[in-house]
Amino acid sequence: MTTPQRHTIHAHQHHHGWDNAHPPVATVAPGEEMFFETVDASGGQLSPDSSVADVAAMDFGLVNPVTGPIRVEGAKPGDALKVTILEFAPSGWGWTALIPGFGLLADQFPDPALHLWRYDTTSMAPAAYGPGGRVPLKPFCGTVGVAPAEPGLHSIVPPRRVGGNMDVRDLAAGTVLWLPVEVEGALFSLGDTHAAQGDGEVCGTAIESPMGVALKFEIEAGAAPAFPRFETPGPVTRHLDAAGYHVTTGVGPDLFQAARDALSGMIDLLGAAHGLSAAEAYMLCSTAADLRISEIVDQPNWVVGLYFPKVVFV
Amino acid sequence: MTTPQRHTIHAHQHHHGWDNAHPPVATVAPGEEMFFETVDASGGQLSPDSSVADVAAMDFGLVNPVTGPIRVEGAKPGDALKVTILEFAPSGWGWTALIPGFGLLADQFPDPALHLWRYDTTSMAPAAYGPGGRVPLKPFCGTVGVAPAEPGLHSIVPPRRVGGNMDVRDLAAGTVLWLPVEVEGALFSLGDTHAAQGDGEVCGTAIESPMGVALKFEIEAGAAPAFPRFETPGPVTRHLDAAGYHVTTGVGPDLFQAARDALSGMIDLLGAAHGLSAAEAYMLCSTAADLRISEIVDQPNWVVGLYFPKVVFV
Repeated sequence: MTTPQRHTIHAHQHHHGWDNAHPPVATVAPGEEMFFETVDASGGQLSPDSSVADVAAMDFGLVNPVTGPIRVEGAKPGDALKVTILEFAPSGWGWTALIPGFGLLADQFPDPALHLWRYDTTSMAPAAYGPGGRVPLKPFCGTVGVAPAEPGLHSIVPPRRVGGNMDVRDLAAGTVLWLPVEVEGALFSLGDTHAAQGDGEVCGTAIESPMGVALKFEIEAGAAPAFPRFETPGPVTRHLDAAGYHVTTGVGPDLFQAARDALSGMIDLLGAAHGLSAAEAYMLCSTAADLRISEIVDQPNWVVGLYFPKVVFV
Repeated sequence: MTTPQRHTIHAHQHHHGWDNAHPPVATVAPGEEMFFETVDASGGQLSPDSSVADVAAMDFGLVNPVTGPIRVEGAKPGDALKVTILEFAPSGWGWTALIPGFGLLADQFPDPALHLWRYDTTSMAPAAYGPGGRVPLKPFCGTVGVAPAEPGLHSIVPPRRVGGNMDVRDLAAGTVLWLPVEVEGALFSLGDTHAAQGDGEVCGTAIESPMGVALKFEIEAGAAPAFPRFETPGPVTRHLDAAGYHVTTGVGPDLFQAARDALSGMIDLLGAAHGLSAAEAYMLCSTAADLRISEIVDQPNWVVGLYFPKVVFV
């Protein structure tokens, strides 16, 4: 997939956390394409041979490394960095884990869990999950962003105005993303590639899978958006929606709790229908089910729905 | 569309608010189908000839009437009422309004506004909106629920555990809905039909359009869900997604504020791209754009995206 004119940023050229003092590992001119290799979100602590004990032993200081930063020539604070996501070179393996203390139902799932995935990088056919489950794949970048203006080292975990760990599952091939530039040269980095994820990434991890990503960079002067925005070239859920959805809801005055209630309902439903353990159902939802805000105006109660695609068990 | 074996509940057989003391207007046996006529969400205060002055003069005590209630033979507290939504008989007209004090950005839009819609009930072709806009239609029931166990009169506005004003835009033809029964006979009512709406119903109104709705009722003994759940027979967004999406995001520790930020971004974007006023863009988002929770685990910040389908302006 790499072509001669694309400069490659190798996976060892990564950093932990955002800091505008990180020196750029390369410079790109507007209009140029680059190819990024990524490390998986465990920072190499998990492998295709890992067990759940490796999840329990993970060092959080090493998670979510991002490849970069690269300097974009001419990018200035107040500009928009326009990033076109061209294509992915998936690795064929991935992991999904329950990490104690992390995830939408962290209080209910104190124990670590791990699911290892294999998928065919040529066919990109849905990946098997337990007895009868098959999760459609759609590679994307979980973490993509630029350095914040504020000096110092900032955690990589929370997403920010400048992007970062957004885990927006539609930052996939063909999508164009606009990020607000806060420092000279933008200082762009990317990592946390996923082979599939539902909206919400409810258990805290998706199909975490190292990949190569080809990108093109452009600058729109003075056009920084208030928050990241993007444009997709086509449908975002056709890989999931052919057979329809099972949907559980949460209804109440707090969107966060409503999302938790919808998720709890789906875990029960998948357990009853397909014999999954609660932990298995929780991880499966994280890779394939979408959290949608159905209604946010009929005060004082809102409705959040969790959409689980039936195609997983068709 | 009505067939002889379907009993019709006429639009005048409606009530305001939920109260398990409302006497049933009819009784249905499990397995039977019924046809409901609805009044629009203004309770007949708006018509195809209305102006914005009529929005300002609306009596809130009359909004969101629901047709019913009907008693389902044998339904008991703890059961699930299984409702199959069979088909819709749309009326061909509708309205979308900004109602002062109501909507996700109520603080920023103090003035009333009104858009009247006409659509073809045979072709159900996308409905025109301003210069060049066309909104794909998908009729559904905004309010569908059963009487709560708690005595007294309860506002129709907020959705509840027993359903009600959920405004879930996928409660469309072919969807099967399970509601928790809290009183003998369930006491089911329905109204607030919409010709189209995005997830969130961000301005507080959709394409409010009176319609007939055919439904089938069944009982699943002892199977009350914690919250309403449903199942769709196929894709839920194919009417919108052919051309892809423009997506604005909000990033921060509060999902509600993140949704507001995403919406503000989209209103600006639509204004710049298509010359819509802020009020026009806000109403258009309510009928066609979807609020999705992209990420709810990367503490302390979450990401909400507003997905506006490009097909509206293709």
